[in-house]
Amino acid sequence: MRALHFDGEAVRLIDAPEPVPGADDAVVRVTLAGICNTDLELVKGYMGFTGILGHEFVGVVEDGPAVWRGRRVVGEINFACGECDWCGRGLGRHCPSRTVMGIQGADGAFAERLRVPVANLHAVPERVPDDAAVFAEPLAAACEILEQVRVEPGTACLVLGDGKLGLLAAQVLTRAGAAVLAVGKHAGALGVLARRGIRTVTLAAWDRAPADLVIEATGAASGLALALAATRPRGTLVLKSTVAHAAPLNLAPAVIHEITIVGSRCGPFAPALAALAEDAVDVRSLIAVRCPLREGGAALRHAAEPGVLKVLVEP
Amino acid sequence: MRALHFDGEAVRLIDAPEPVPGADDAVVRVTLAGICNTDLELVKGYMGFTGILGHEFVGVVEDGPAVWRGRRVVGEINFACGECDWCGRGLGRHCPSRTVMGIQGADGAFAERLRVPVANLHAVPERVPDDAAVFAEPLAAACEILEQVRVEPGTACLVLGDGKLGLLAAQVLTRAGAAVLAVGKHAGALGVLARRGIRTVTLAAWDRAPADLVIEATGAASGLALALAATRPRGTLVLKSTVAHAAPLNLAPAVIHEITIVGSRCGPFAPALAALAEDAVDVRSLIAVRCPLREGGAALRHAAEPGVLKVLVEP
Repeated sequence: MRALHFDGEAVRLIDAPEPVPGADDAVVRVTLAGICNTDLELVKGYMGFTGILGHEFVGVVEDGPAVWRGRRVVGEINFACGECDWCGRGLGRHCPSRTVMGIQGADGAFAERLRVPVANLHAVPERVPDDAAVFAEPLAAACEILEQVRVEPGTACLVLGDGKLGLLAAQVLTRAGAAVLAVGKHAGALGVLARRGIRTVTLAAWDRAPADLVIEATGAASGLALALAATRPRGTLVLKSTVAHAAPLNLAPAVIHEITIVGSRCGPFAPALAALAEDAVDVRSLIAVRCPLREGGAALRHAAEPGVLKVLVEP
Repeated sequence: MRALHFDGEAVRLIDAPEPVPGADDAVVRVTLAGICNTDLELVKGYMGFTGILGHEFVGVVEDGPAVWRGRRVVGEINFACGECDWCGRGLGRHCPSRTVMGIQGADGAFAERLRVPVANLHAVPERVPDDAAVFAEPLAAACEILEQVRVEPGTACLVLGDGKLGLLAAQVLTRAGAAVLAVGKHAGALGVLARRGIRTVTLAAWDRAPADLVIEATGAASGLALALAATRPRGTLVLKSTVAHAAPLNLAPAVIHEITIVGSRCGPFAPALAALAEDAVDVRSLIAVRCPLREGGAALRHAAEPGVLKVLVEP
């Protein structure tokens, strides 16, 4: 089958072996996949990953238990052991022996077919089209904020970064009752939020007034210093960006102002799918372009350009 | 009066004007003062401070309201406005218009006399000697951890750093029920804890097993990376070190493992004084040497040497 493979140096379209499912696995025919900033970091060396890239997808189960065959699915990306303390606590996302789809020790979704543990599958509600369902994984990552931080009605919240995750987080937090101000560089991206009644401001015009809750979703190493300065004393900063390289950073402001910095990664799929089914979050406006898998390398380069939102890949 | 002054370039013993108390102030004759790592950072340029250094002291009220005159006191270091929202919430430590004794816009305690707002004074219990009372401020900073983080009986807790704050934090957390392992470089310093039944290990011999709660009190910019690696997924890292310079840091592990980093600074004096009155924390073993104020420059240099614990200054 065709697949987009990263060998540690370059991304190439290869003829990969068909996935071999284990007893607890399904094989999913990928209908649509999404490029995430993490993919762009991986090809810069983040995590030292080699293999088939991609961890955002929607597809149809081709092989696996009868109950799943033929169903349209999305899938959680952490392949957990199911037996350790973490898994027992429902936190397989932190299972120490996990592999991670397209990120760590497991092939990903930029391929015609994909192996996914059955435990990771979620059926897609009928009324959610493929080009919305493909956002389930990043939307779950945005929903994770609500698992970690208490958001009260009216909580003053800054979302820094108008990339894909920032736009999803701003909508999820607004839906949870927060008074969101989204700060970004791209009028087009901010417009997605403005059309849904969310306050937006460009970085240049922003008054830099600090807030109680700040979401760092700039995707840039420099974003944390900006976010720290924008968090009120005793406030909370949710850190969403992962970057491949270390950056000079002085955390003295976090100590002086007793700021709580919460690292936040993957989240629960159920609320994400519910939000998509209710049309409560606009994801389809984030789609920049759909590319065929055979042009995957170019698609990755395009996704890395400033201001480009979601690039979808069609196997 | 004599005072130890930092002009932005050098520390000098000067003949300073006597402090002039306002209506809500007391003048305290300093009996004993302590050198903190923050003082060492200040003379490297941290906070851009110029003035009389010092923010740990015990003394006797010479001038001020009759009820305070002649009393032995310690004092909180944040001089707050008393009128803003922060002050109203009991968090004058974060008052945006505050000055800070010997750190920001207010002269400090390495002097014969010191101005302190009456609101900041705490009477020292009779049974607490001066050379224990002088630890009230750093011990309060250690107690602050308990204000910010829930410590359950048996919580696995690593304290990284066997400097003054690390030794105080290890004792405060042990007293709160945590199962503490203190990691440091100095057998002498760790011995203070071992004598109180607290588990200790040298950095070289440490197995680096992660814990749920990690206190970063190394005082080194490099300590945070070490502390991040020692925090379990979904665990909490309390950041106590402030350093004057930025250091390269990759916070990706905080995101991947969804670690909560809690900046922690000054704390409540009441529990600190209570612990001293109960002799529940050994502070006097931390005293390395007492120096006269006229040798304050040398005292600061001595305090900066590796493994030297508390250097006290006697006006």
